[in-house]
Amino acid sequence: MSRAARGRGGRRPGNPGTRKQILDAARARFADVGFDRASVRSIAADAGVDPALVHHYFGTKQNLMVAAMELPVDPEVVLSQVRAAPDDGIAAALMQAVIGLWDSPDGAAVVATFRGVLAGSDPRLIGSFLLGVAMREVRRRVDTPPGSGDTRATLAGSHLMGILVARRILEIEPLASMPLDELITRCAPQIQHYLTGPFDV
Amino acid sequence: MSRAARGRGGRRPGNPGTRKQILDAARARFADVGFDRASVRSIAADAGVDPALVHHYFGTKQNLMVAAMELPVDPEVVLSQVRAAPDDGIAAALMQAVIGLWDSPDGAAVVATFRGVLAGSDPRLIGSFLLGVAMREVRRRVDTPPGSGDTRATLAGSHLMGILVARRILEIEPLASMPLDELITRCAPQIQHYLTGPFDV
Repeated sequence: MSRAARGRGGRRPGNPGTRKQILDAARARFADVGFDRASVRSIAADAGVDPALVHHYFGTKQNLMVAAMELPVDPEVVLSQVRAAPDDGIAAALMQAVIGLWDSPDGAAVVATFRGVLAGSDPRLIGSFLLGVAMREVRRRVDTPPGSGDTRATLAGSHLMGILVARRILEIEPLASMPLDELITRCAPQIQHYLTGPFDV
Repeated sequence: MSRAARGRGGRRPGNPGTRKQILDAARARFADVGFDRASVRSIAADAGVDPALVHHYFGTKQNLMVAAMELPVDPEVVLSQVRAAPDDGIAAALMQAVIGLWDSPDGAAVVATFRGVLAGSDPRLIGSFLLGVAMREVRRRVDTPPGSGDTRATLAGSHLMGILVARRILEIEPLASMPLDELITRCAPQIQHYLTGPFDV
C-alpha cells in the first residue's frame, strides 16, 4: 500500500462513489483470480483507495463478497447449519440449508441475484463465491487425500447448483414440486459421494 | 382449427412477420405447458395462422422448438449418440455427447443460447426443451417402474446441467479444465444411478 493511496483514500471517506468503486474492483478481482487470491489490498489498489477504507465500509473480505454479489441474505445462516453437520451428513445439511433457502420467502431474491450474475458480464463471480465462501469450509473438511478438496467441493457444488437451477429457475417438473425431504433422500447420497467417497479414478 | 384461421394463414404465407409470430407463440406455449402438451394446432391458433403454415415453415414440432430456442446446432447429432448407447451406458454417452458439444468449437454459441434463455423472460423454455427434446427418448427408456421416467431424467439432466454451468459459464476450477474422460469417470456413475438405479425412496 503506497502512502499516496492511503492519502487519497483518507481524503474521501464520505465520497458516495467510493463504495461503488470498491465494489466494482472487488467484482472484477474476485471473478478474475478467485476469492482466496483476491486480497483486500489489491482490491483497494484497483479502486484507488486505502485498504483501511475497504475494511471500514465492508468489514471482512467475506462481507465484501456478499456486498459485491448483492446477496440478499447472510451466508452465515447457511454456513452455520453445514458446520454443525457430521462429515457423513454434509451433503444432506448442504441441501437442507441451500435448497431450503431458495424455497423460503427470501428465495425469490436469491434466485434473482443468481440469475442477474449469471446473465451479467462476469458470471465467474458466482464460482468465486461458491469456492471462496459457500464451500470454503467444506473444501477443507473433505480434503482427503490432501489436494482433493477443491475437486470434491466443485463436483458436489455443481450437482447442487444444477438442482437449484432446474427447480427454481427452469421450474422443471417433477423436480420443481418435489418435497425437499424426497429430494434430499434421492440426491444427498450422490452429492455425499463426491465429498467423502473414493477419490482416485 | 377454424376456417377463419386457415383462411388468414393461407392469405399471408409470405408475411415476414408470420414466422416471428409463430416463434413467439411457440416459445410461450412450450414454456407454459411443456413440449409434449404444446400442440402445433394450439401454437398456430395463438399465432393466428393455419397449422399447415407452421409445418411449412418449420417441419416437425422438434424443429419448431430448435428454432424457438435459436439453437445453433441440430440436437439430432447428440440424440443419435445417446440412442446408440446401451441402457447402462446412457449417462456416459449423454456426458460425452453434450459436454463434448459444449467443449467443441460450436460450444460458445450453445453457451450463449443457454445463457440468453436463462436470463430472458421465460427460462422455462429450457426445461421444456430438456424434457421434450433432449431427454425425450431417455425418459421412455428408463421408465422402470412405469411413471418414474420423468423423475429419473430430470434428476440426471439437472446434474448434467450443473456440470455444464460450472464448467462453461462459471468456469469453476478444477472442473473447467478437467479432461472430459476424467469428468465422465467421476460423474457418469452418479448420473447413471438416477437413470437405472433403485427408484423407491
